[in-house]
Amino acid sequence: MNGPVIILVQPQIGENIGIAARAMLNCGLTELRLVAPRENWPNEKADRAAVGAFELMAPVKVFDVTRDAVADLTHVFATTARDRKMAKAVLHPREAARQSHAQLARGAKVGYLFGPERAGLENDDLTLADSLVNVPLNPAFSSLNLGQAVLLMAYEFYQIALDLEPARLDLHGSLPATKAELLNFFNHFERALEECGFLRNEAQRPTMVRNLRNMWQRAYLTEQEVRTMHGIVKELTTLRQNGVKNSKM
Amino acid sequence: MNGPVIILVQPQIGENIGIAARAMLNCGLTELRLVAPRENWPNEKADRAAVGAFELMAPVKVFDVTRDAVADLTHVFATTARDRKMAKAVLHPREAARQSHAQLARGAKVGYLFGPERAGLENDDLTLADSLVNVPLNPAFSSLNLGQAVLLMAYEFYQIALDLEPARLDLHGSLPATKAELLNFFNHFERALEECGFLRNEAQRPTMVRNLRNMWQRAYLTEQEVRTMHGIVKELTTLRQNGVKNSKM
Repeated sequence: MNGPVIILVQPQIGENIGIAARAMLNCGLTELRLVAPRENWPNEKADRAAVGAFELMAPVKVFDVTRDAVADLTHVFATTARDRKMAKAVLHPREAARQSHAQLARGAKVGYLFGPERAGLENDDLTLADSLVNVPLNPAFSSLNLGQAVLLMAYEFYQIALDLEPARLDLHGSLPATKAELLNFFNHFERALEECGFLRNEAQRPTMVRNLRNMWQRAYLTEQEVRTMHGIVKELTTLRQNGVKNSKM
Repeated sequence: MNGPVIILVQPQIGENIGIAARAMLNCGLTELRLVAPRENWPNEKADRAAVGAFELMAPVKVFDVTRDAVADLTHVFATTARDRKMAKAVLHPREAARQSHAQLARGAKVGYLFGPERAGLENDDLTLADSLVNVPLNPAFSSLNLGQAVLLMAYEFYQIALDLEPARLDLHGSLPATKAELLNFFNHFERALEECGFLRNEAQRPTMVRNLRNMWQRAYLTEQEVRTMHGIVKELTTLRQNGVKNSKM
């Protein structure tokens, strides 16, 4: 997958670079650039925090100034935590992800710009960007770690790439029960309730039966589970008979 | 804002608890519970990593077992990285967030369950959950740090708050059963299965019990339905005794 280049401007802490790399690769992004990192590069703490991510990514490129780091890009999004007095669109990360996919689809080269841990990007760097991106967070506690900011941006990009499946019920090879199988079980179950006297209140009986059937329906039973429930109901009945037998001896 | 409770099961590293707390508060979540943390609690490394988050959150509660940590909850989502052989819905974090909002809107108490850093949640803990949640990531590099997993779940919850959807499952005033009520019923049900001999195969027994619990969980039982099922199990048992009595006469 061809994705945005991640550019960390003046990252202060080696470990954060490693965490960012790990988050990138989690989301299929493989191009990392650094602008004037405070610590030496390559960096041992970054390597440890990346838990192997660097080996699966393109070689990290290091630049002296942001201008050079974005020179070959055609569309740059700059992340910012604070409100910046700039006449630029401020996007939600999800919208930035959408636009990135659209840009990449027509051959653009896209970059995401992140500032230093404490101060964020300087105005000169923001000026290089096409749009700003702001993550909406709890206004009373909105400071985000650099690695986590990279993760959220990369995550949104990766999720757009998938055709979002809201839910899937994994039955691991077991088939859902057919309606016929369900009805068959309902009848068996209700016969047992009948015999044990649970349905003795004639007036409440139809509601009772309907509610129980609704409850079973919601469980979305598999064929196997229907067989199991047949077995349970049967054993309870058989045992009752055995109990009777035993008591006769 | 009333949001999901975050439950970290056997977190191994104090720092990760702090990072998780910070991510929670970034997204407006303030209730953290720990199950058997490996390091002592309170924990200095957690405090440092939280950069002040704990002071703005509810006091962290510590439990010995997961069962107790979810006892007062009505809907639990369990995060899992690996494929688990369980007949439970597997949701995208965004769908889990949507469902959480719907649940909370009608008075449910929701929890997000996270396993230990290396191993993830055990099957017994997954069995306590209503649904599993899986973050789609690069299959070639999908391991996510605990703090980052918490961040993604909390982030999705917070983003949905901006664009809320109405509730889906109409329980007509009936409350969903709490986990404690469910466990109480499971125990009653399994005792009955024990007595009637259904669980006689010792080797298959744990799987059997787990599968049945998963089946009940999927039914999303109400308080009323749990009472009804108690009644059904009890009557089947009582009737068996009556049968014995009658046969003596």
